[in-house]
Amino acid sequence: EILAAAERLLGKGAGRLAGKRVLITSGPTHEPIDPVRYIANRSSGKQGTAIAAALLAEGAEVTLITGPTAEPAPPGVKLARVETAREMLAAVEAALPVDAAIFAAAVADWRAAEASVRKLKKDGSGAIPDLKLSENPDILRTICALPPGKRPALVVGFAAETNDVVENATAKRARKGCDWIVANDVSGDVMGGARNRVTLIDGKGVEDWPEAAKDEV
Amino acid sequence: EILAAAERLLGKGAGRLAGKRVLITSGPTHEPIDPVRYIANRSSGKQGTAIAAALLAEGAEVTLITGPTAEPAPPGVKLARVETAREMLAAVEAALPVDAAIFAAAVADWRAAEASVRKLKKDGSGAIPDLKLSENPDILRTICALPPGKRPALVVGFAAETNDVVENATAKRARKGCDWIVANDVSGDVMGGARNRVTLIDGKGVEDWPEAAKDEV
Repeated sequence: EILAAAERLLGKGAGRLAGKRVLITSGPTHEPIDPVRYIANRSSGKQGTAIAAALLAEGAEVTLITGPTAEPAPPGVKLARVETAREMLAAVEAALPVDAAIFAAAVADWRAAEASVRKLKKDGSGAIPDLKLSENPDILRTICALPPGKRPALVVGFAAETNDVVENATAKRARKGCDWIVANDVSGDVMGGARNRVTLIDGKGVEDWPEAAKDEV
Repeated sequence: EILAAAERLLGKGAGRLAGKRVLITSGPTHEPIDPVRYIANRSSGKQGTAIAAALLAEGAEVTLITGPTAEPAPPGVKLARVETAREMLAAVEAALPVDAAIFAAAVADWRAAEASVRKLKKDGSGAIPDLKLSENPDILRTICALPPGKRPALVVGFAAETNDVVENATAKRARKGCDWIVANDVSGDVMGGARNRVTLIDGKGVEDWPEAAKDEV
Protein backbone atom coordinates (compact mmCIF):
# COMPACT_ATOMS: atom_id res chain seq x y z
CA GLU A 1 0.00 0.00 0.00
CA ILE A 2 2.91 2.34 0.72
CA LEU A 3 4.14 1.28 -2.66
CA ALA A 4 0.89 2.02 -4.48
CA ALA A 5 0.63 5.43 -2.85
CA ALA A 6 4.28 6.14 -3.61
CA GLU A 7 3.72 5.30 -7.25
CA ARG A 8 0.85 7.78 -7.43
CA LEU A 9 2.94 10.50 -5.88
CA LEU A 10 6.04 9.83 -7.92
CA GLY A 11 3.92 9.84 -11.05
CA LYS A 12 4.67 6.41 -12.44
CA GLY A 13 1.01 5.53 -12.96
CA ALA A 14 0.15 1.91 -12.99
CA GLY A 15 3.17 0.23 -11.60
CA ARG A 16 6.78 0.56 -12.58
CA LEU A 17 9.41 2.37 -10.53
CA ALA A 18 12.19 1.72 -13.02
CA GLY A 19 14.91 4.29 -12.77
CA LYS A 20 13.69 5.62 -9.42
CA ARG A 21 16.26 5.63 -6.63
CA VAL A 22 14.88 4.76 -3.22
CA LEU A 23 16.66 4.37 0.10
CA ILE A 24 15.22 2.43 3.02
CA THR A 25 16.52 2.19 6.55
CA SER A 26 15.67 -0.94 8.50
CA GLY A 27 16.26 -2.78 11.75
CA PRO A 28 17.39 -1.45 15.12
CA THR A 29 20.50 0.44 16.05
CA HIS A 30 22.83 -0.84 18.78
CA GLU A 31 24.42 1.84 20.93
CA PRO A 32 27.44 0.54 22.85
CA ILE A 33 27.71 1.07 26.61
CA ASP A 34 31.01 -0.83 26.84
CA PRO A 35 32.62 -3.67 24.84
CA VAL A 36 29.94 -6.18 25.88
CA ARG A 37 26.81 -4.12 26.59
CA TYR A 38 24.56 -2.01 24.42
CA ILE A 39 21.19 -0.29 24.31
CA ALA A 40 18.91 -1.51 21.53
CA ASN A 41 15.44 -1.12 20.13
CA ARG A 42 13.26 -4.09 19.41
CA SER A 43 13.15 -4.37 15.64
CA SER A 44 13.42 -7.48 13.53
CA GLY A 45 14.05 -5.60 10.28
CA LYS A 46 11.18 -7.54 8.70
CA GLN A 47 9.20 -4.46 7.70
CA GLY A 48 12.04 -2.53 6.05
CA THR A 49 13.28 -5.66 4.30
CA ALA A 50 9.78 -6.45 2.98
CA ILE A 51 9.41 -2.90 1.64
CA ALA A 52 12.83 -3.10 0.00
CA ALA A 53 11.86 -6.35 -1.72
CA ALA A 54 8.57 -4.89 -2.94
CA LEU A 55 10.28 -1.78 -4.35
CA LEU A 56 12.89 -3.93 -6.07
CA ALA A 57 10.10 -5.96 -7.64
CA GLU A 58 8.71 -2.70 -9.07
CA GLY A 59 12.03 -1.91 -10.69
CA ALA A 60 13.36 0.71 -8.28
CA GLU A 61 17.06 1.04 -7.55
CA VAL A 62 17.05 0.29 -3.84
CA THR A 63 19.64 1.09 -1.19
CA LEU A 64 18.95 -0.76 2.08
CA ILE A 65 20.71 0.63 5.14
CA THR A 66 20.19 -1.76 8.01
CA GLY A 67 21.15 -2.10 11.65
CA PRO A 68 21.96 -5.53 13.13
CA THR A 69 19.26 -8.05 12.22
CA ALA A 70 19.01 -11.71 11.27
CA GLU A 71 16.99 -10.81 8.14
CA PRO A 72 18.77 -11.62 4.88
CA ALA A 73 18.90 -8.68 2.48
CA PRO A 74 16.87 -9.12 -0.73
CA PRO A 75 19.20 -9.96 -3.62
CA GLY A 76 19.69 -6.90 -5.79
CA VAL A 77 19.66 -4.17 -3.15
CA LYS A 78 22.67 -2.01 -2.50
CA LEU A 79 23.32 -2.98 1.11
CA ALA A 80 24.95 -0.99 3.88
CA ARG A 81 25.23 -2.57 7.34
CA VAL A 82 25.59 -0.22 10.28
CA GLU A 83 25.44 -0.52 14.05
CA THR A 84 24.76 2.91 15.58
CA ALA A 85 22.47 5.83 14.77
CA ARG A 86 25.44 7.98 13.83
CA GLU A 87 26.69 5.35 11.40
CA MET A 88 23.19 5.09 9.93
CA LEU A 89 22.97 8.84 9.34
CA ALA A 90 26.36 8.82 7.61
CA ALA A 91 25.27 5.93 5.37
CA VAL A 92 22.01 7.72 4.49
CA GLU A 93 23.85 10.91 3.57
CA ALA A 94 26.27 8.90 1.45
CA ALA A 95 23.33 7.33 -0.45
CA LEU A 96 21.86 10.69 -1.53
CA PRO A 97 20.50 11.89 -3.88
CA VAL A 98 17.44 9.64 -4.07
CA ASP A 99 13.87 10.13 -5.28
CA ALA A 100 12.33 8.69 -2.14
CA ALA A 101 13.58 7.84 1.35
CA ILE A 102 11.71 5.49 3.66
CA PHE A 103 12.87 5.48 7.27
CA ALA A 104 11.66 2.19 8.70
CA ALA A 105 14.56 1.63 11.11
CA ALA A 106 13.95 1.81 14.84
CA VAL A 107 16.77 4.23 15.58
CA ALA A 108 17.79 4.63 19.21
CA ASP A 109 16.93 8.13 20.42
CA TRP A 110 19.73 8.02 22.96
CA ARG A 111 23.16 6.52 23.27
CA ALA A 112 25.55 6.17 26.20
CA ALA A 113 27.23 9.54 26.58
CA GLU A 114 30.63 7.89 26.84
CA ALA A 115 31.02 4.29 25.74
CA SER A 116 33.66 2.66 27.94
CA VAL A 117 36.52 0.86 26.19
CA ARG A 118 36.78 -1.39 29.25
CA LYS A 119 34.00 -3.62 30.48
CA LEU A 120 32.15 -2.00 33.37
CA LYS A 121 32.47 -4.14 36.50
CA LYS A 122 30.36 -4.71 39.52
CA ASP A 123 32.79 -3.82 42.31
CA GLY A 124 30.96 -5.79 45.00
CA SER A 125 29.94 -2.66 46.85
CA GLY A 126 26.46 -2.80 45.38
CA ALA A 127 27.04 0.60 43.79
CA ILE A 128 25.04 1.09 40.61
CA PRO A 129 26.79 2.87 37.77
CA ASP A 130 25.13 6.00 36.50
CA LEU A 131 24.32 5.56 32.83
CA LYS A 132 24.51 9.01 31.27
CA LEU A 133 22.78 9.32 27.91
CA SER A 134 23.24 11.64 24.95
CA GLU A 135 20.70 12.37 22.24
CA ASN A 136 21.37 10.73 18.90
CA PRO A 137 21.10 12.65 15.64
CA ASP A 138 17.53 12.75 14.29
CA ILE A 139 17.99 11.13 10.90
CA LEU A 140 14.44 11.74 9.68
CA ARG A 141 14.42 15.41 10.61
CA THR A 142 17.91 15.94 9.25
CA ILE A 143 16.98 14.57 5.83
CA CYS A 144 13.63 16.42 5.73
CA ALA A 145 15.44 19.69 6.39
CA LEU A 146 17.77 19.36 3.42
CA PRO A 147 17.37 22.09 0.76
CA PRO A 148 15.20 21.35 -2.29
CA GLY A 149 17.22 19.38 -4.77
CA LYS A 150 19.04 17.52 -2.03
CA ARG A 151 15.89 16.56 -0.11
CA PRO A 152 14.19 13.46 -1.55
CA ALA A 153 10.85 14.29 -3.20
CA LEU A 154 9.14 11.83 -0.89
CA VAL A 155 10.22 11.24 2.70
CA VAL A 156 8.34 8.60 4.69
CA GLY A 157 8.75 8.18 8.42
CA PHE A 158 7.47 5.50 10.76
CA ALA A 159 6.12 5.97 14.24
CA ALA A 160 5.91 3.11 16.71
CA GLU A 161 3.37 4.16 19.29
CA THR A 162 1.86 2.45 22.30
CA ASN A 163 -0.81 5.06 23.03
CA ASP A 164 -2.58 8.00 21.34
CA VAL A 165 -1.31 6.58 18.07
CA VAL A 166 -2.84 9.06 15.59
CA GLU A 167 -2.24 12.12 17.74
CA ASN A 168 1.39 11.23 18.40
CA ALA A 169 2.07 10.31 14.78
CA THR A 170 0.39 13.45 13.42
CA ALA A 171 2.51 15.57 15.75
CA LYS A 172 5.58 13.64 14.68
CA ARG A 173 4.85 14.31 11.01
CA ALA A 174 4.65 18.05 11.63
CA ARG A 175 7.71 18.10 13.90
CA LYS A 176 9.91 16.14 11.51
CA GLY A 177 8.73 17.81 8.32
CA CYS A 178 8.23 14.56 6.42
CA ASP A 179 5.61 13.84 3.79
CA TRP A 180 4.04 10.75 5.28
CA ILE A 181 4.08 9.03 8.62
CA VAL A 182 3.21 5.36 8.84
CA ALA A 183 2.00 4.80 12.39
CA ASN A 184 2.40 1.33 13.91
CA ASP A 185 0.39 0.55 16.99
CA VAL A 186 2.89 -1.49 19.02
CA SER A 187 0.73 -1.81 22.11
CA GLY A 188 0.08 -5.44 21.19
CA ASP A 189 2.71 -8.03 20.39
CA VAL A 190 3.90 -6.69 17.04
CA MET A 191 7.65 -6.20 17.30
CA GLY A 192 9.40 -9.08 15.62
CA GLY A 193 6.18 -10.56 14.33
CA ALA A 194 5.23 -10.82 10.68
CA ARG A 195 2.01 -8.82 10.94
CA ASN A 196 1.29 -5.23 11.62
CA ARG A 197 -1.50 -2.70 12.16
CA VAL A 198 -0.76 0.61 10.50
CA THR A 199 -2.22 4.04 9.88
CA LEU A 200 -0.97 6.33 7.10
CA ILE A 201 -0.90 10.03 7.86
CA ASP A 202 -0.19 12.46 5.04
CA GLY A 203 -0.92 16.13 4.56
CA LYS A 204 -4.59 15.48 3.86
CA GLY A 205 -5.58 13.27 6.73
CA VAL A 206 -5.56 9.87 8.27
CA GLU A 207 -6.14 6.57 6.56
CA ASP A 208 -6.55 3.37 8.53
CA TRP A 209 -5.40 0.15 7.01
CA PRO A 210 -6.61 -3.20 8.17
CA GLU A 211 -4.17 -5.46 9.93
CA ALA A 212 -1.95 -7.02 7.31
CA ALA A 213 1.14 -9.08 6.80
CA LYS A 214 4.24 -6.87 6.74
CA ASP A 215 4.98 -7.58 3.10
CA GLU A 216 1.53 -6.33 2.10
CA VAL A 217 2.13 -3.08 3.96
CA GLU B 1 37.98 -29.64 26.99
CA ILE B 2 35.42 -28.48 29.54
CA LEU B 3 33.72 -31.73 28.81
CA ALA B 4 36.80 -33.90 29.34
CA ALA B 5 37.60 -32.14 32.60
CA ALA B 6 33.98 -32.46 33.70
CA GLU B 7 34.06 -36.17 33.05
CA ARG B 8 37.15 -36.58 35.21
CA LEU B 9 35.54 -34.65 38.05
CA LEU B 10 32.17 -36.35 37.81
CA GLY B 11 33.93 -39.69 37.82
CA LYS B 12 32.70 -41.15 34.59
CA GLY B 13 36.16 -42.08 33.39
CA ALA B 14 36.58 -42.45 29.69
CA GLY B 15 33.56 -40.81 28.23
CA ARG B 16 29.94 -41.38 29.00
CA LEU B 17 27.76 -38.94 30.93
CA ALA B 18 24.68 -41.12 30.71
CA GLY B 19 22.28 -40.43 33.53
CA LYS B 20 24.01 -37.20 34.53
CA ARG B 21 21.79 -34.13 34.64
CA VAL B 22 23.44 -30.95 33.45
CA LEU B 23 22.01 -27.46 33.05
CA ILE B 24 23.55 -24.82 30.81
CA THR B 25 22.64 -21.17 30.49
CA SER B 26 23.35 -19.49 27.19
CA GLY B 27 22.92 -16.27 25.24
CA PRO B 28 22.34 -12.74 26.48
CA THR B 29 19.57 -11.36 28.62
CA HIS B 30 17.44 -8.45 27.45
CA GLU B 31 16.39 -6.02 30.14
CA PRO B 32 13.46 -3.83 29.07
CA ILE B 33 13.67 -0.05 29.41
CA ASP B 34 10.22 0.47 27.89
CA PRO B 35 8.09 -1.47 25.37
CA VAL B 36 10.56 -0.88 22.52
CA ARG B 37 13.95 -0.41 24.18
CA TYR B 38 16.19 -2.72 26.15
CA ILE B 39 19.71 -3.14 27.49
CA ALA B 40 21.53 -6.21 26.19
CA ASN B 41 24.83 -7.99 26.30
CA ARG B 42 26.58 -9.09 23.16
CA SER B 43 26.24 -12.85 23.10
CA SER B 44 25.40 -15.06 20.17
CA GLY B 45 24.64 -18.11 22.30
CA LYS B 46 27.08 -20.12 20.16
CA GLN B 47 29.26 -21.21 23.09
CA GLY B 48 26.48 -22.41 25.37
CA THR B 49 24.73 -24.15 22.50
CA ALA B 50 27.94 -25.91 21.43
CA ILE B 51 28.55 -27.12 25.00
CA ALA B 52 24.96 -28.35 25.24
CA ALA B 53 25.37 -30.32 22.01
CA ALA B 54 28.66 -31.85 23.21
CA LEU B 55 27.14 -32.90 26.55
CA LEU B 56 24.14 -34.41 24.78
CA ALA B 57 26.50 -36.39 22.57
CA GLU B 58 28.08 -37.81 25.74
CA GLY B 59 24.70 -39.00 26.95
CA ALA B 60 23.93 -36.35 29.56
CA GLU B 61 20.39 -35.17 30.21
CA VAL B 62 20.75 -31.51 29.26
CA THR B 63 18.57 -28.54 30.18
CA LEU B 64 19.41 -25.46 28.08
CA ILE B 65 18.17 -22.16 29.48
CA THR B 66 18.74 -19.48 26.89
CA GLY B 67 18.16 -15.78 26.43
CA PRO B 68 17.15 -14.37 23.03
CA THR B 69 19.44 -15.71 20.29
CA ALA B 70 19.18 -16.85 16.69
CA GLU B 71 20.92 -20.15 17.55
CA PRO B 72 18.72 -23.21 17.13
CA ALA B 73 18.65 -25.44 20.19
CA PRO B 74 20.25 -28.88 19.74
CA PRO B 75 17.53 -31.51 19.31
CA GLY B 76 17.12 -33.46 22.53
CA VAL B 77 17.76 -30.73 25.09
CA LYS B 78 15.08 -29.63 27.50
CA LEU B 79 14.76 -26.02 26.39
CA ALA B 80 13.66 -22.98 28.38
CA ARG B 81 13.60 -19.60 26.64
CA VAL B 82 13.82 -16.54 28.85
CA GLU B 83 14.37 -12.83 28.31
CA THR B 84 15.57 -11.23 31.55
CA ALA B 85 18.07 -12.17 34.26
CA ARG B 86 15.28 -12.65 36.76
CA GLU B 87 13.48 -15.04 34.42
CA MET B 88 16.75 -16.91 33.88
CA LEU B 89 17.31 -17.36 37.61
CA ALA B 90 13.77 -18.67 38.04
CA ALA B 91 14.28 -21.15 35.19
CA VAL B 92 17.60 -22.32 36.68
CA GLU B 93 16.02 -22.88 40.10
CA ALA B 94 13.17 -24.78 38.46
CA ALA B 95 15.68 -27.08 36.72
CA LEU B 96 17.38 -28.17 39.95
CA PRO B 97 18.59 -30.62 41.15
CA VAL B 98 21.34 -31.27 38.60
CA ASP B 99 24.78 -32.85 38.78
CA ALA B 100 26.50 -29.98 37.01
CA ALA B 101 25.57 -26.42 36.11
CA ILE B 102 27.43 -24.45 33.45
CA PHE B 103 26.68 -20.73 33.35
CA ALA B 104 27.69 -19.60 29.87
CA ALA B 105 25.02 -16.90 29.47
CA ALA B 106 26.05 -13.25 29.37
CA VAL B 107 23.62 -12.09 32.03
CA ALA B 108 23.05 -8.35 32.32
CA ASP B 109 24.42 -7.10 35.64
CA TRP B 110 21.93 -4.27 35.68
CA ARG B 111 18.40 -3.63 34.53
CA ALA B 112 16.34 -0.45 34.26
CA ALA B 113 15.10 0.27 37.77
CA GLU B 114 11.59 0.83 36.49
CA ALA B 115 10.68 -0.38 33.02
CA SER B 116 8.12 2.02 31.57
CA VAL B 117 4.90 0.51 30.20
CA ARG B 118 4.70 3.48 27.81
CA LYS B 119 7.32 4.28 25.22
CA LEU B 120 9.64 7.01 26.47
CA LYS B 121 9.39 10.05 24.21
CA LYS B 122 11.72 12.78 23.22
CA ASP B 123 9.74 15.87 24.21
CA GLY B 124 11.58 18.24 21.90
CA SER B 125 13.19 20.09 24.78
CA GLY B 126 16.44 18.23 24.31
CA ALA B 127 16.11 16.89 27.85
CA ILE B 128 17.81 13.53 28.32
CA PRO B 129 15.99 10.99 30.44
CA ASP B 130 17.85 9.70 33.45
CA LEU B 131 18.21 5.94 33.14
CA LYS B 132 18.23 4.58 36.68
CA LEU B 133 19.61 1.06 36.99
CA SER B 134 19.09 -1.71 39.51
CA GLU B 135 21.37 -4.66 40.12
CA ASN B 136 20.16 -7.97 38.76
CA PRO B 137 20.27 -11.15 40.84
CA ASP B 138 23.65 -12.89 40.64
CA ILE B 139 22.63 -16.27 39.27
CA LEU B 140 26.08 -17.88 39.58
CA ARG B 141 26.61 -16.79 43.18
CA THR B 142 23.05 -17.70 44.13
CA ILE B 143 23.44 -21.27 42.87
CA CYS B 144 26.94 -21.67 44.36
CA ALA B 145 25.58 -20.64 47.76
CA LEU B 146 22.92 -23.35 47.85
CA PRO B 147 23.29 -25.91 50.66
CA PRO B 148 25.03 -29.22 49.90
CA GLY B 149 22.54 -31.55 48.30
CA LYS B 150 20.84 -28.68 46.47
CA ARG B 151 24.07 -27.19 45.09
CA PRO B 152 25.24 -28.96 41.90
CA ALA B 153 28.45 -30.96 42.49
CA LEU B 154 30.14 -28.97 39.73
CA VAL B 155 29.41 -25.31 39.05
CA VAL B 156 31.21 -23.68 36.12
CA GLY B 157 31.17 -19.94 35.54
CA PHE B 158 32.39 -17.90 32.59
CA ALA B 159 34.16 -14.58 32.72
CA ALA B 160 34.31 -12.28 29.71
CA GLU B 161 37.23 -9.97 30.32
CA THR B 162 38.87 -7.23 28.28
CA ASN B 163 41.86 -6.69 30.57
CA ASP B 164 43.75 -8.45 33.40
CA VAL B 165 41.98 -11.60 32.30
CA VAL B 166 43.48 -14.13 34.73
CA GLU B 167 43.48 -11.78 37.73
CA ASN B 168 39.87 -10.75 37.19
CA ALA B 169 38.71 -14.31 36.56
CA THR B 170 40.54 -15.71 39.59
CA ALA B 171 38.96 -13.05 41.77
CA LYS B 172 35.59 -13.85 40.25
CA ARG B 173 35.96 -17.54 41.05
CA ALA B 174 36.65 -16.78 44.72
CA ARG B 175 33.88 -14.18 44.94
CA LYS B 176 31.22 -16.38 43.39
CA GLY B 177 32.21 -19.60 45.09
CA CYS B 178 32.15 -21.69 41.93
CA ASP B 179 34.37 -24.64 41.10
CA TRP B 180 35.74 -23.47 37.78
CA ILE B 181 35.90 -20.25 35.88
CA VAL B 182 36.38 -20.30 32.12
CA ALA B 183 37.88 -16.93 31.22
CA ASN B 184 37.28 -15.55 27.74
CA ASP B 185 39.52 -12.76 26.57
CA VAL B 186 37.04 -10.55 24.69
CA SER B 187 39.47 -7.74 23.96
CA GLY B 188 39.59 -8.91 20.35
CA ASP B 189 36.61 -9.51 18.09
CA VAL B 190 35.24 -12.64 19.74
CA MET B 191 31.61 -11.94 20.64
CA GLY B 192 29.36 -13.52 18.06
CA GLY B 193 32.22 -15.24 16.30
CA ALA B 194 32.75 -18.97 16.14
CA ARG B 195 36.19 -18.99 17.77
CA ASN B 196 37.36 -18.23 21.23
CA ARG B 197 40.47 -17.90 23.43
CA VAL B 198 39.93 -19.33 26.88
CA THR B 199 41.68 -19.96 30.18
CA LEU B 200 40.41 -22.47 32.75
CA ILE B 201 40.81 -21.54 36.39
CA ASP B 202 40.08 -24.14 39.04
CA GLY B 203 41.13 -24.54 42.64
CA LYS B 204 44.61 -25.68 41.64
CA GLY B 205 45.67 -23.05 39.16
CA VAL B 206 45.46 -21.67 35.71
CA GLU B 207 45.46 -23.59 32.48
CA ASP B 208 45.73 -21.80 29.15
CA TRP B 209 44.05 -23.33 26.15
CA PRO B 210 45.02 -22.45 22.65
CA GLU B 211 42.56 -20.52 20.55
CA ALA B 212 39.91 -22.94 19.37
CA ALA B 213 36.57 -23.15 17.68
CA LYS B 214 33.76 -22.77 20.20
CA ASP B 215 32.54 -26.32 19.79
CA GLU B 216 35.97 -27.65 20.72
CA VAL B 217 35.94 -25.60 23.90
